[in-house]
Amino acid sequence: MIQNISLVGAGNLATQLGKALKQAGLHIIQVYSRTETSAKALAAVLECPYTTDLSTLLKSDLVIVSVKDDALEQVLSQIKGSSKVVHTGGSVPMDILASYFNKFGVFYPLQTFSKKRDVDFSSIPICLEANTPEFYDELQKLADRLSKTVSFVNSEQRKILHLAAVFTCNFVNHFYQIGDSLLEDKGMDFSMLQPLILETAQKVKDLKPIDAQTGPAVRFDETIINKHLNLLSDKPELQKIYSFVSESIYQTKNSK
Amino acid sequence: MIQNISLVGAGNLATQLGKALKQAGLHIIQVYSRTETSAKALAAVLECPYTTDLSTLLKSDLVIVSVKDDALEQVLSQIKGSSKVVHTGGSVPMDILASYFNKFGVFYPLQTFSKKRDVDFSSIPICLEANTPEFYDELQKLADRLSKTVSFVNSEQRKILHLAAVFTCNFVNHFYQIGDSLLEDKGMDFSMLQPLILETAQKVKDLKPIDAQTGPAVRFDETIINKHLNLLSDKPELQKIYSFVSESIYQTKNSK
Repeated sequence: MIQNISLVGAGNLATQLGKALKQAGLHIIQVYSRTETSAKALAAVLECPYTTDLSTLLKSDLVIVSVKDDALEQVLSQIKGSSKVVHTGGSVPMDILASYFNKFGVFYPLQTFSKKRDVDFSSIPICLEANTPEFYDELQKLADRLSKTVSFVNSEQRKILHLAAVFTCNFVNHFYQIGDSLLEDKGMDFSMLQPLILETAQKVKDLKPIDAQTGPAVRFDETIINKHLNLLSDKPELQKIYSFVSESIYQTKNSK
Repeated sequence: MIQNISLVGAGNLATQLGKALKQAGLHIIQVYSRTETSAKALAAVLECPYTTDLSTLLKSDLVIVSVKDDALEQVLSQIKGSSKVVHTGGSVPMDILASYFNKFGVFYPLQTFSKKRDVDFSSIPICLEANTPEFYDELQKLADRLSKTVSFVNSEQRKILHLAAVFTCNFVNHFYQIGDSLLEDKGMDFSMLQPLILETAQKVKDLKPIDAQTGPAVRFDETIINKHLNLLSDKPELQKIYSFVSESIYQTKNSK
């Protein structure tokens, strides 16, 4: 049974995952980060030692590697020989681990994480993959301690999930940011948009997004669309996004 | 005091506003729609008579006009002489009503409405404007019966609110739709994205959107961005949106 865990990485995901693991009774024995400040900060939260040198990584039941994709291979080569290792990357195939370890897999919580904001792990889908059924079983038991929604997702599917998450989270948040800055320019407060934002998110629990759509683009209300493009005349980049997304909404509606 | 109301229009907004008014104890005396099916359906819900002929509009304390912007002028000319009239359009200036009525204004609930989905009006910001302080006061008393958040918003500000609502609701919902279709193509269910969607919406209650941003674009993770663009190689339109929005996220981060 997995009990002692080392965390390689101290970014947003590692921070929130570390906290959730600790809260679920797991033992984080060590945190690694290349950056001492990050390593130290997370170690303080998790009340465990830290290192900035992978050659001093302690032995544990599981190493969770949560570093930038670009840094992954270099990190892996330095911890070669660890017995059980997972990475947490949405877009990285499991097999990247194959040449380094005997038991390896993926532990991908599908959520947006920030260091400053705690999240309730119990509702987060955790997507698992492992190179053996036995190790999958161990990972599942671990994930079950954190979340009600644990499922097998292969590397091909996970790539798509990650891409979809970029659209439905990062790109969505960017549109929140655009809304915020449009209002700020006219002395209005972003809080005015919050009931709309929340309802838009909750609506798609009950309706398919295509059926939930409203607004000028879906009904091709050219009068309003042109008014909006005029309002954006000093922001050519937003104008471009407005046009493309409106066109895409209209096309989607009419191709179904 | 406004007690008897006629609704001109039977679309999404008129339907949900009519229900909320009725629930708050107001009396909807008549519904008009050009389309008999729509008029009849809403009249059935509101338990009131309907008409498809504006010349038979009954006298009421307030006429709420909620029709497509393109149809507005024609409708207004046909109800010229009504004593108190408001429209509900985000992008339509109040003054469009000036040549038809003595007391006029705008009653704009900032929310996404669908006929099929009921919403809790009490949290919806209602944006008011009126041509006299007395009529504003009457509208405010009416709006206060529906919502906790009633505020004065002039026509210039309301245009911007509407534009911001398109970004933060319609465009956001389109990205939910893209997520849905990406998952569907690979046999996965949209429900996997729902905890992420909800957290993304809730996160911006506590953090400014620019501080809530995560993902490959904001950290300019070219490896992942290129993987995602490759995954979209058979969807050039989504590829284009992906590039533009990613670029915009990165620029925004680095211009602040």
